[in-house]
Amino acid sequence: MDDLERRERIREALTDFRLDGLVCVSQTDILLLTGYWPVMGASVVVFPTSQQVQVVLPEDEMEIASHSTSAHLIPYQPASLDGLSTPLEKLSPVLKSALAGVHLDKARLGIRRGLCMQPASYSSSLQLGQALESFLAKVAPDTKRIECDAELDLLKATKTSAELKLIRKSAAIAADAFTRGSHTIEAGQRESDVAAAFQHAFETSQVAAGTRRFYAFFFCMSGPNSAKASGAYAHTQQRVIENGDLVLVHANTCADGYWTDVTRTYVVGDESERQAGMRSAIEQARAAALRSIRPGARARDVDAAARGVMEQHGLGEAFRHSTGHGVGFVAANPNALPRIHPMSPDLLENGMTFNVEPAAYFDGYGGMRHCDMVAVADNGAQVLTDF
Amino acid sequence: MDDLERRERIREALTDFRLDGLVCVSQTDILLLTGYWPVMGASVVVFPTSQQVQVVLPEDEMEIASHSTSAHLIPYQPASLDGLSTPLEKLSPVLKSALAGVHLDKARLGIRRGLCMQPASYSSSLQLGQALESFLAKVAPDTKRIECDAELDLLKATKTSAELKLIRKSAAIAADAFTRGSHTIEAGQRESDVAAAFQHAFETSQVAAGTRRFYAFFFCMSGPNSAKASGAYAHTQQRVIENGDLVLVHANTCADGYWTDVTRTYVVGDESERQAGMRSAIEQARAAALRSIRPGARARDVDAAARGVMEQHGLGEAFRHSTGHGVGFVAANPNALPRIHPMSPDLLENGMTFNVEPAAYFDGYGGMRHCDMVAVADNGAQVLTDF
Repeated sequence: MDDLERRERIREALTDFRLDGLVCVSQTDILLLTGYWPVMGASVVVFPTSQQVQVVLPEDEMEIASHSTSAHLIPYQPASLDGLSTPLEKLSPVLKSALAGVHLDKARLGIRRGLCMQPASYSSSLQLGQALESFLAKVAPDTKRIECDAELDLLKATKTSAELKLIRKSAAIAADAFTRGSHTIEAGQRESDVAAAFQHAFETSQVAAGTRRFYAFFFCMSGPNSAKASGAYAHTQQRVIENGDLVLVHANTCADGYWTDVTRTYVVGDESERQAGMRSAIEQARAAALRSIRPGARARDVDAAARGVMEQHGLGEAFRHSTGHGVGFVAANPNALPRIHPMSPDLLENGMTFNVEPAAYFDGYGGMRHCDMVAVADNGAQVLTDF
Repeated sequence: MDDLERRERIREALTDFRLDGLVCVSQTDILLLTGYWPVMGASVVVFPTSQQVQVVLPEDEMEIASHSTSAHLIPYQPASLDGLSTPLEKLSPVLKSALAGVHLDKARLGIRRGLCMQPASYSSSLQLGQALESFLAKVAPDTKRIECDAELDLLKATKTSAELKLIRKSAAIAADAFTRGSHTIEAGQRESDVAAAFQHAFETSQVAAGTRRFYAFFFCMSGPNSAKASGAYAHTQQRVIENGDLVLVHANTCADGYWTDVTRTYVVGDESERQAGMRSAIEQARAAALRSIRPGARARDVDAAARGVMEQHGLGEAFRHSTGHGVGFVAANPNALPRIHPMSPDLLENGMTFNVEPAAYFDGYGGMRHCDMVAVADNGAQVLTDF
């Protein structure tokens, strides 16, 4: 992929920040800057204002990278049989020469200095960010390192056409898995069986054809457990599902680095009056939120639209969390832009992607949430998970 | 779990390092120090030399933590509807008071400063380590922060009886998944179908009963693709499996924070002479490595035992990587102790856990690997994945 639109935006941003370049090691930052999503976390990107973007990466990741970026790839060997070494020891000379090659060895370089949420890119990965600043000070002592965490986060908020296409594909795989997985829900199954069935539907999805790496985390929380889905994370247990239960299935899925955040809540058997009331309120809250989405709208107004409907139905207190947050480069980060939160200062822009997740939770009884992936377009909200 | 053995070892280590305490945010470090494996990465542990261990953690993780640790739990709310904030803003006052509560606000504190590989604990998690040093300097300016990365890594190498029990359980779940998943392999299936079948077998395993969080990453690489398994990571594709193929299935699985690293290689249909030769060499290399394992043995001698057999079979060059590395607190970290590598200075100790993974790879043809989880006991190697 050669995303000219993205490269142009970053170059404009570099001019605005008065930087000569960026040096990034966070896997999501590298995806943003190049289209390549590192596997093991041992890659470094050097992004100059005018010359070609340089990626220093483990030789093992050359094939994956060459399919996803037009940046210049410089392989190195983090480990070998000839000696024991840390990745930093092997990286050091390669990065030094990459910086010199694009005349950034005495430059003003933007780096990420603080916190960021990282999605799982493999069973484990290196967290190179922790060492970046001191490492860079050693490798390129004449550079000036300047924090640009907020600027990188802002760049991630608004997607390019190429990125939107990939996020749309990622959402389509998730939608297929939900549609096929949901047929398996029945009384007598454990939560873990239901989660496994959805996971299997995802992993065997024909919609994923052409995708190189796709992972998913599916969770099932049923009956009283579903009320706990209001927390920061979902948690599948071994509870056996009963007739009449609320069955909340939540997923964070990923295709080639682009994440989704999707939830549906099913009822086993006939829906009770209480459940039907919750569902109706949530559907109306969702519709109200979607109607309020357009370029220039205030994110807090989207939250207010959904929250207002929930309050009208007496479910204001049961709607415990914000209406949404940015999703795409990462799934479950409540601080990803735009924050669809009562106190949010964020304004919506064409190309932003986030989730819309009206919900109602009652401790001891259960929870219901409907979470969609949404993109902002000129004519309003585009729902990427319309199933 | 109250792991007195672990607490005692850490206290002894603190005395040796002349530290008053440890402050850790890495999820694997927190698992080591307390038995609690954080989900979202927004937890901090304060480990004093004599007073009770303090864990500052998101309120949402109280239930998980209270089941896994006897440390004192101090909940906080990283996010709320009342305002936008970063986790650090909310953490700050709570951590400050936790430090003062155990008289560590002016102390010599060990912290992790450099690189570490983190396993996936959720679809995404916060990498608090990056901010720890400057955060601590603000919250507790009178403390002295001392790097103890190497000391923490060393503590992780040798497991306590309680940890060994959990790693053994984790390996048993993986073994069950391999045993049940392997029946599904046949010509005509895609690699992704095979990986999905193993994953499903894992997620529905009855052996997992009693485990609170279990995740797995299963990968399938077949035919020529299996040769690429010599790299730092495995990668499932959509290749359709043919009769006569090598089918390499690799997994990193996790139960409540304790990881495994397991590989088996199957042949579809009749095994060819070449494949039988590879299998025989690998079996003998495995046996030689296992025979050489005992407390006090040199890790490099274990590598030499396996490598020598492979060389005798003319497969020395095809065995491209080291014979193993530490596994338990993390799966795929080649620098985890002990390093079963030709140049390793490490000595084996009772309670160490690592993988033994003799293999042969031929580009364009395929690869075969047999990777087991092993623990060092008084009388030699205990294989935790003996199936």
